[in-house]
Amino acid sequence: MNDRFLRACRREPIDYTPVWLMRQAGRYMSEYMEIRSKYTFLEMCKNPEVAAEVTLQPIDKLGVDAAILFADILLPFEGMGLQLEFAKNEGPVIHNPVRTKADVDAIRILEAEEATPYVMEAIRILRRELEGRVPLIGFSGAPFTLASYMIEGGGSKTYTECKKMMWQAPELWHALMTKISEVIVRYLKAQIQAGAQAVQLFDSWVGALSPVDYKEYVFPHSKYVLDNLKDAGVPVIHFANNASSMLELVKEAGGDVIGLDWRINIDDAIKRLGDDVAVQGNIDPMILFAPPKVIEAKVKDILDRVGKRPGHIFNLGHGINKETPVENVIALVEAVHKYSRA
Amino acid sequence: MNDRFLRACRREPIDYTPVWLMRQAGRYMSEYMEIRSKYTFLEMCKNPEVAAEVTLQPIDKLGVDAAILFADILLPFEGMGLQLEFAKNEGPVIHNPVRTKADVDAIRILEAEEATPYVMEAIRILRRELEGRVPLIGFSGAPFTLASYMIEGGGSKTYTECKKMMWQAPELWHALMTKISEVIVRYLKAQIQAGAQAVQLFDSWVGALSPVDYKEYVFPHSKYVLDNLKDAGVPVIHFANNASSMLELVKEAGGDVIGLDWRINIDDAIKRLGDDVAVQGNIDPMILFAPPKVIEAKVKDILDRVGKRPGHIFNLGHGINKETPVENVIALVEAVHKYSRA
Repeated sequence: MNDRFLRACRREPIDYTPVWLMRQAGRYMSEYMEIRSKYTFLEMCKNPEVAAEVTLQPIDKLGVDAAILFADILLPFEGMGLQLEFAKNEGPVIHNPVRTKADVDAIRILEAEEATPYVMEAIRILRRELEGRVPLIGFSGAPFTLASYMIEGGGSKTYTECKKMMWQAPELWHALMTKISEVIVRYLKAQIQAGAQAVQLFDSWVGALSPVDYKEYVFPHSKYVLDNLKDAGVPVIHFANNASSMLELVKEAGGDVIGLDWRINIDDAIKRLGDDVAVQGNIDPMILFAPPKVIEAKVKDILDRVGKRPGHIFNLGHGINKETPVENVIALVEAVHKYSRA
Repeated sequence: MNDRFLRACRREPIDYTPVWLMRQAGRYMSEYMEIRSKYTFLEMCKNPEVAAEVTLQPIDKLGVDAAILFADILLPFEGMGLQLEFAKNEGPVIHNPVRTKADVDAIRILEAEEATPYVMEAIRILRRELEGRVPLIGFSGAPFTLASYMIEGGGSKTYTECKKMMWQAPELWHALMTKISEVIVRYLKAQIQAGAQAVQLFDSWVGALSPVDYKEYVFPHSKYVLDNLKDAGVPVIHFANNASSMLELVKEAGGDVIGLDWRINIDDAIKRLGDDVAVQGNIDPMILFAPPKVIEAKVKDILDRVGKRPGHIFNLGHGINKETPVENVIALVEAVHKYSRA
């Protein structure tokens, strides 16, 4: 088995740097689009065979060192009582956004196998079909990121409603975050139980907050989730996007691996994080639109900055763009393997 | 005259911390909306009397310590040969985006008095009407931010076309940035000539870049602009939004004052910047949706973090939101004056 990814998570020395790509199963692949033409996005997520098939597509095609379950961070919402829809070209919509105490009280905390059985089934199928070729990563949105969708009713540029609740009704905010955190713990534990060999917590939008607000309104809840996964037996990746000014807090919240976006030099990040944690990242996902020569130079720059330090998983600094040319993705993966071996 | 803003720019000790707010002349004010109902946005910008009137609205109403010219960073585009439109609810559109060598070659570099006479006229009117009450700030978009609009043809989430040019055609990129930088130097010098008592360079979207790309593709051009303003006789504020991981580079590019967004603790930023530069910022603009008590606590936290260090101008970390309650803006300004005096 290619267990380089897991060994890098544990900061063990390995022969070359493992690489996987956030959103590697996605719309930039023609194989994905072919399946997507037959189903809605939610149908794909909820059909374990389809989710498993899509998860596997990039493994052979790209030569990546880990598989990540095809799913959406908002899948737990329906079990919580939220009406989720993926509207055409508009991203996710929550038709009953959470704004009041009654809304928070109404949120259900189910067992994950009951709320999202299809996710666990997809993981079981994948473990069989992967036959140990590469490890399988499960994931969840982090408390702030999930709360932001719930409160705003969808994506946001300003997080107005979300921040209003934080500052105007802090008790309600913390009650909501506590419920969300409990759902996340159950969701990730169930994924691990079903066979996920590592899990990633995605705090995609927490960069909207100042470090002071992060510490007061988010940190305790992310820490609760990560504390509860400490004994789960698999590595945990904590990715807080656009949070380079508060990396120390992100590390303190927890995680065996800290995910980094591309807005920081990886050697500067490593200096601040210290040697007792692995790092994942951190190339600009848009680099995949550059000529292969430029991609290779950027890969080499990141590998050089990391140097011989064990505990580096190569990844993009954010999800892959849907227009990305697949041949450039292959060139990136090859460059990581080639230069880190050298 | 209330010259606290200018004295803070020069890092002189003053009796209380001056404050102004990015986009302080704007849609959150009913007085603004009344005028806006009679003109399009571009008509307002191009009518010097109207631009001056709108610039003055927040001065008495809010009690801020500086006026900033009402204008848009894209106003120089028309003189450069670009077809600019502010489409309803869609933000700016450039109908002939810059993509090829022919497009870059076609860009004109006019004198700013010829390209944007109405801006200079508004400044002259304002200096008369302000009668020295508070200083007047002029401004321009920075090279990267202007290039991003030009190349994308409007706003962007991913800056795909912009980054494509950077990486696929670096010579073309640098040729474009060189032309833009020359236009900016002329534009800001003309504003100073007309009476602007300080100028701010807005690099609103440069946070889309990694520090390595910033250094190679942007830094030399921002530095060119800022070097050329060194002897212009007025303080220069350099605001690079979402760039807290590369503050040292932003400082090295230049500016008497470094603008900070809210994603970094201001004391951490000051530690990294050193004592030979003033700072401006850095409260989350969304804090204006919080209750006054919370606003006051956050203001006090920032002032406490700065302490007795001279050279702090209080501001938001980004432009004010159009839905902001005006009474909270007044509460913020009062809190800055009250706590910094204490």
